[in-house]
Amino acid sequence: MKESPGVVDLLGVLAYAELSAYARMTEDAASLAPSLADRTALSELAVAEYGHFRLLHGRLVELGADPEAAMSPFVEALDAWHAQTAPADWLQALVKAYVGEGIAFDFYREAARLLDPSIAKLVDEVLADEGRSEFAVERVRAGLAADPVAAGRLALWARRLVGEALSQGQRVAAARPELARMLAEAESDDQAEISRMFARLTEEHNKRMAALGL
Amino acid sequence: MKESPGVVDLLGVLAYAELSAYARMTEDAASLAPSLADRTALSELAVAEYGHFRLLHGRLVELGADPEAAMSPFVEALDAWHAQTAPADWLQALVKAYVGEGIAFDFYREAARLLDPSIAKLVDEVLADEGRSEFAVERVRAGLAADPVAAGRLALWARRLVGEALSQGQRVAAARPELARMLAEAESDDQAEISRMFARLTEEHNKRMAALGL
Repeated sequence: MKESPGVVDLLGVLAYAELSAYARMTEDAASLAPSLADRTALSELAVAEYGHFRLLHGRLVELGADPEAAMSPFVEALDAWHAQTAPADWLQALVKAYVGEGIAFDFYREAARLLDPSIAKLVDEVLADEGRSEFAVERVRAGLAADPVAAGRLALWARRLVGEALSQGQRVAAARPELARMLAEAESDDQAEISRMFARLTEEHNKRMAALGL
Repeated sequence: MKESPGVVDLLGVLAYAELSAYARMTEDAASLAPSLADRTALSELAVAEYGHFRLLHGRLVELGADPEAAMSPFVEALDAWHAQTAPADWLQALVKAYVGEGIAFDFYREAARLLDPSIAKLVDEVLADEGRSEFAVERVRAGLAADPVAAGRLALWARRLVGEALSQGQRVAAARPELARMLAEAESDDQAEISRMFARLTEEHNKRMAALGL
């Protein structure tokens, strides 16, 4: 079975996003967690990301695609995002995990709504893990209660995470015309829908910031 | 329910060994794998280690022990082992994964045979993952076929892995008398059994070296 290159691109970018998030969260957990209990909590999230990677990898194989070839066009942009957003401390690591997860879940939802219905089941399985990053909210709020001055710094950090993600996203869209075209075609009968999608993503991000107390 | 400190120590050292192995393999996979397929193969092994960590963590909770307190006495020795055996390249990472897994499995088997029967079920579950690291054998042999000169260097590396493990093991035994005493008591009716245990471990290690072609 051959799918459009756009679908393979979509699964490929999500797969590498999960694989790299798993590795970076694991590293952040090992190097920044202030206790073994904190380290375990973030490692659980990392391993859940690996579970999503497995689902996406399996779906690519089912579609007859080479998973490694599907992921490789996105390695540079996602690695660059992680390199530019290496957390300097535990609270930054938690905000990154929570914000990054949130953006990823929103993206899965948009993808399922706009695109290939064949990925809807996969999206449902991934979204079953939504809420796993809630521990981060509780810990960030406790951190802010202990050190209220950190709020301004963390709010800037969250904006930087989103800003760098948008900049890498634009780079990916320019380099992968099939993926961009697929997203654009899904919107073609209603141009205003693109604005609405960005408004939804921004609104969801703002809700997450509020949940963190930022 | 209160268990002897030796049993909690045993589960604690195994738990932190799995947690740290998961983190280091994940990092080695992300930084050293020559392809995304290789990275995935080593990441699968890392995530399986995390599964063992979950089993041990759960068992500690069942015993009424604090898992973090049970692990913390062993953090320094295991972190030191990893710091002294950071692989410089992909073949070293594979040999470390295979040799490290092998030593860990041998240790689980000895623990199940000598010690608390309550961990026998846990050991069976962990040992179900034996064979996962076999991919490393195939890849190391292929690497040696392409570069036979690497064999001497890798054989030295494997000896260093075991040497550093023994040295950290002695340090742990000195610092944790309950753990050492529990192992010693299990052996008390037959002093020669200790020598036989070391002979078994060495024999198993030599089999693994032969499997790798080293």
